[in-house]
Amino acid sequence: MGEKVKLFVTWSSPFSLRVIWALRLKGIEYDIVHEDLSNKSSVLVHNDQVICESLVILEYVDETWKHNTLLPEDPYERATARFWARFGDDKVLASIVYGVFVKQGKEQEEGIVASLENLKHLEEELKGKKFFGGKKIGLVDLALGWLAYYLGIFEEIMGLKLVDQQKFPSLAAWIHEFADHPVIRDAWPPRDKLVAKFIAMRETHLSKDGHN
Amino acid sequence: MGEKVKLFVTWSSPFSLRVIWALRLKGIEYDIVHEDLSNKSSVLVHNDQVICESLVILEYVDETWKHNTLLPEDPYERATARFWARFGDDKVLASIVYGVFVKQGKEQEEGIVASLENLKHLEEELKGKKFFGGKKIGLVDLALGWLAYYLGIFEEIMGLKLVDQQKFPSLAAWIHEFADHPVIRDAWPPRDKLVAKFIAMRETHLSKDGHN
Repeated sequence: MGEKVKLFVTWSSPFSLRVIWALRLKGIEYDIVHEDLSNKSSVLVHNDQVICESLVILEYVDETWKHNTLLPEDPYERATARFWARFGDDKVLASIVYGVFVKQGKEQEEGIVASLENLKHLEEELKGKKFFGGKKIGLVDLALGWLAYYLGIFEEIMGLKLVDQQKFPSLAAWIHEFADHPVIRDAWPPRDKLVAKFIAMRETHLSKDGHN
Repeated sequence: MGEKVKLFVTWSSPFSLRVIWALRLKGIEYDIVHEDLSNKSSVLVHNDQVICESLVILEYVDETWKHNTLLPEDPYERATARFWARFGDDKVLASIVYGVFVKQGKEQEEGIVASLENLKHLEEELKGKKFFGGKKIGLVDLALGWLAYYLGIFEEIMGLKLVDQQKFPSLAAWIHEFADHPVIRDAWPPRDKLVAKFIAMRETHLSKDGHN
């Protein structure tokens, strides 16, 4: 093949993981370069072409290596998948990380209401399916994959539960299915290192907002 | 064809305009329903299928009606276009609207620095091209199209210039080319109504942040 695929990632980044998972699902060999940047953007270099932004990279990977598709073929189903992938970043991740995890008191309470509302939409979308992609992992699963590992870490650090079995049965089941999938489960960063990192991140934010 | 295309838009929304432009570029007939919601999301209904979010809708339109393409064919060029479209929303629009337009004083000064930095990247990307899409309007042009009309309105209201001919020759030329394109120029909302709306929006934000 003579193809060169190189991935620049931050060890703790859930965005980087999306690309690692996509390449693993496709069975593409790659070199990985760890860079501990606070910069969120992952970078894929494929035969000297540079592609940035994890969701953009996922589509590139899917269009370049067409087996084991991440997106369905039908334009409407593709649009739906793209919508949920963006919803995951713009609403779910934003509300949980910036509305709950780095907040406290009344602000956090409001953030929890918004987060649960967003998670309810995911629960509805997932109902009756094993993965967001249906029977197999697709682009939306990769986009939301952080929920299957990082959310539990956030919950543990804060001492509160957002996704419980009773209110979110489909999402709770998906978290187990996804986190334990053979392609996914070996790629998670060390949990203790993530816990330490996110405790520090939370404290930095809370001390900055100390006047609230 | 017997196809039903219906578009729900907010009259003042630059996001809605993207979809209107895309359908006009493709020559697709549509019914338009005006809804004056503060909700930013545009909605396309095509044969009873509902698609939300303007950039997602643009890709749907491009995949459904394949003539007059909005995205190039090559996966790398497609990824590049998707990157700039998102950069336009996440960086350019965010820094100009939320960092400059609804701010004042020191906060606004910092916002201006960030906005000019983001605009510089667009200037570089555009250099030597008529449109971001090359010789013809493409997805990135539609995503950034608000710059060609709304930016001037923001500048007028604030009494300051972000994109001038000297610092941003390519972008300034693009603003004229895009705004005057036959498919684009008839679709802009009435300028005086937009000015009134954005003056009110700015005042609401500034009075809320009055303590800064």
